[in-house]
Amino acid sequence: MTDLFERTKALFEIPEGVIYLDGNSLGPLARAAKERLAREVAENWGGQLIRAWNTAGWIDLPARIGNRIGALIGAPEGSVIAADSTSVNLFKALTAALSLTGERKVILSDSGNFPSDLYIAEGVIRTLDKGHRLKIVAPEEVEAAIDETVAVLMLTEVDYATGRLHDMKALTAKAKAAGVVTIWDLAHSAGALPVDLSGAGADFAIGCGYKYLNGGPGAPAFIYVRPELQDKIRPSLSGWLGHEAPFLFDLDYRPGPSIDRMRAGTPPILSMTALDAGLSAWDGVDIHAVRERSIALCDLFIKEVEARCPDLVLASPRDGSRRGSQVSFRHPQGYAVMQALIANNVIGDFRAPDIIRFGFTPLYIGFEETVAAAEVLEKVIKEKLWDCPEFLKKSKVT
Amino acid sequence: MTDLFERTKALFEIPEGVIYLDGNSLGPLARAAKERLAREVAENWGGQLIRAWNTAGWIDLPARIGNRIGALIGAPEGSVIAADSTSVNLFKALTAALSLTGERKVILSDSGNFPSDLYIAEGVIRTLDKGHRLKIVAPEEVEAAIDETVAVLMLTEVDYATGRLHDMKALTAKAKAAGVVTIWDLAHSAGALPVDLSGAGADFAIGCGYKYLNGGPGAPAFIYVRPELQDKIRPSLSGWLGHEAPFLFDLDYRPGPSIDRMRAGTPPILSMTALDAGLSAWDGVDIHAVRERSIALCDLFIKEVEARCPDLVLASPRDGSRRGSQVSFRHPQGYAVMQALIANNVIGDFRAPDIIRFGFTPLYIGFEETVAAAEVLEKVIKEKLWDCPEFLKKSKVT
Repeated sequence: MTDLFERTKALFEIPEGVIYLDGNSLGPLARAAKERLAREVAENWGGQLIRAWNTAGWIDLPARIGNRIGALIGAPEGSVIAADSTSVNLFKALTAALSLTGERKVILSDSGNFPSDLYIAEGVIRTLDKGHRLKIVAPEEVEAAIDETVAVLMLTEVDYATGRLHDMKALTAKAKAAGVVTIWDLAHSAGALPVDLSGAGADFAIGCGYKYLNGGPGAPAFIYVRPELQDKIRPSLSGWLGHEAPFLFDLDYRPGPSIDRMRAGTPPILSMTALDAGLSAWDGVDIHAVRERSIALCDLFIKEVEARCPDLVLASPRDGSRRGSQVSFRHPQGYAVMQALIANNVIGDFRAPDIIRFGFTPLYIGFEETVAAAEVLEKVIKEKLWDCPEFLKKSKVT
Repeated sequence: MTDLFERTKALFEIPEGVIYLDGNSLGPLARAAKERLAREVAENWGGQLIRAWNTAGWIDLPARIGNRIGALIGAPEGSVIAADSTSVNLFKALTAALSLTGERKVILSDSGNFPSDLYIAEGVIRTLDKGHRLKIVAPEEVEAAIDETVAVLMLTEVDYATGRLHDMKALTAKAKAAGVVTIWDLAHSAGALPVDLSGAGADFAIGCGYKYLNGGPGAPAFIYVRPELQDKIRPSLSGWLGHEAPFLFDLDYRPGPSIDRMRAGTPPILSMTALDAGLSAWDGVDIHAVRERSIALCDLFIKEVEARCPDLVLASPRDGSRRGSQVSFRHPQGYAVMQALIANNVIGDFRAPDIIRFGFTPLYIGFEETVAAAEVLEKVIKEKLWDCPEFLKKSKVT
């Protein structure tokens, strides 16, 4: 197994001396992405020009990338497409879901959902103007809140702040039994842990290309629709590349077959090709092996940090099976602590109001870096390196 | 003036021997984009990692690009943002427009609009489910159809197929007088001819980054909202980067100031940086000088082709002031003719059912290439090079 992760680590370019624990925010540069982008730009854009839509296969890239991602999240071929941003894909999924749910009015979510998901739901409700309402409960109250009044259950599997992991299978099963349509946001799941959309019977899923999938800054996102539902949906964002025959230029919209209809406009090809190349790091990698090592790395980090920094309060579940691929701690000066860590070459991130967050990504992070990061954190806390005005003047890390 | 265009031509990499008359579909590679992308990838993604959102200014890129585009379309600072695709931006604009138009139900457009715009309107109507209807008239009937029953006038200024140019100023004035909200699609206008959104009093505009703006394949699009309207709109696609304070991670959506609220999710940064670099070709270039030369190039091409190929029927307005920056002809075997042209290094494109289309882009196309293209077209037609089965077997040029 060590051989596997030595091999994958060599696929990425990480600056010398940097311990990068923020791959859950932006995955690092894969060498393949660098090479691929240079080639796409020079040979295809520069050399093939418009012809590259066919000769370089740009037109099919969203479907090919979708299938690569699908293989990591338990989705069959032809059920995932790479497109747009996570927020825009959630809009597509939620409007589609609400077209299936008749008179029910409640969209159930939780306070651990990523805020953009809640904002999108608010925008959908306001736009549809049909009396839907967003019911936000605490994460631990979600299961009890699923009942026959609920139209859609919309959750992020792994909490972006704490790493708390929902039980997708159990919640989806309960939702199904109550006739509730499910939408799962896999932003912190895809590439972080095994996901089984088919096995769980999830109706829709969306997720992000630039975190654990290493697709580059703002990489295109993805959307999954359960195969049985695909033909029942007419997309709200009915753009030309979701049309059955875009190049006939008919004046009437006819949705394309299967997941194709979830495409809208022309995709940002340069960002798409970087995502496609970044995904190649997963070739031959068993996500279960990644999960096993991720839990071991996170467990080790918790143990090391708690032994060294008793002031820090663990914000993540202690039980690895209930946690995503990150560890979060609380500190009242969390923002300044993270600035001091970054100044000392340990890069994690801060999430308001008081969370410092560390992502563990076995493809390129091992046990040595994990212990070394805990050592730097100890130094930052014990020597109060964070209590230094110049850190606070710096602009906010996102 | 020749000096200006010699200078701008040197900014692009076009393969030796190719006459590229398809910059209205995909602008060619700007050298600046190639260099910029290599640097963004190696230094910022690779070296700065997550920090690049601040250190490389990624977070403000959509606004900075928006202002660059704004300068080409008569839009004041802070009224344009680069984001998403043209289709998705039209969805934002149309839902916003319909939130301002009370009980009126008609969305007026024309049969010369780009089909994706009509498809998006259909999706908006279906999604809102409030009895709106799309009224599609012939381009020359638009003016007479503007009356007080119309909610929104939604037009593309330059017809993608024929190049016919609407009179934005007159139509917008008539719409305004009738209380109609206007949305202009500038896909074939921005960078092709002078646009004066402010002067015309247009309410919304959208457009494309990958045609005359040379932003690269599938480059992000843009959206303009008239400054006086910006604060009256709550976006349908209310994603986190349109929030007043995205990094506070509040559970409630509060729209950001001015045009910022038209951002939705995380933007595809690699594609954004290529667009930003492509736009630098416009530095110091007067769009009126470009327009003057574009008309001269198109006039010359029409004259040369008509003299050489009497079988071809002009599909574009003969009067340069009524035409965008392209020339289209009809031929019953248009698809095969275009394949034969491309095989002979003259790249234009085909639009179903019978249009061959040539874009003239003074930044990198001059009079010599224009005459040379007409000569190749003459050869293709006279020698029936298109009447060769192998061209028909090739996959469709998009």
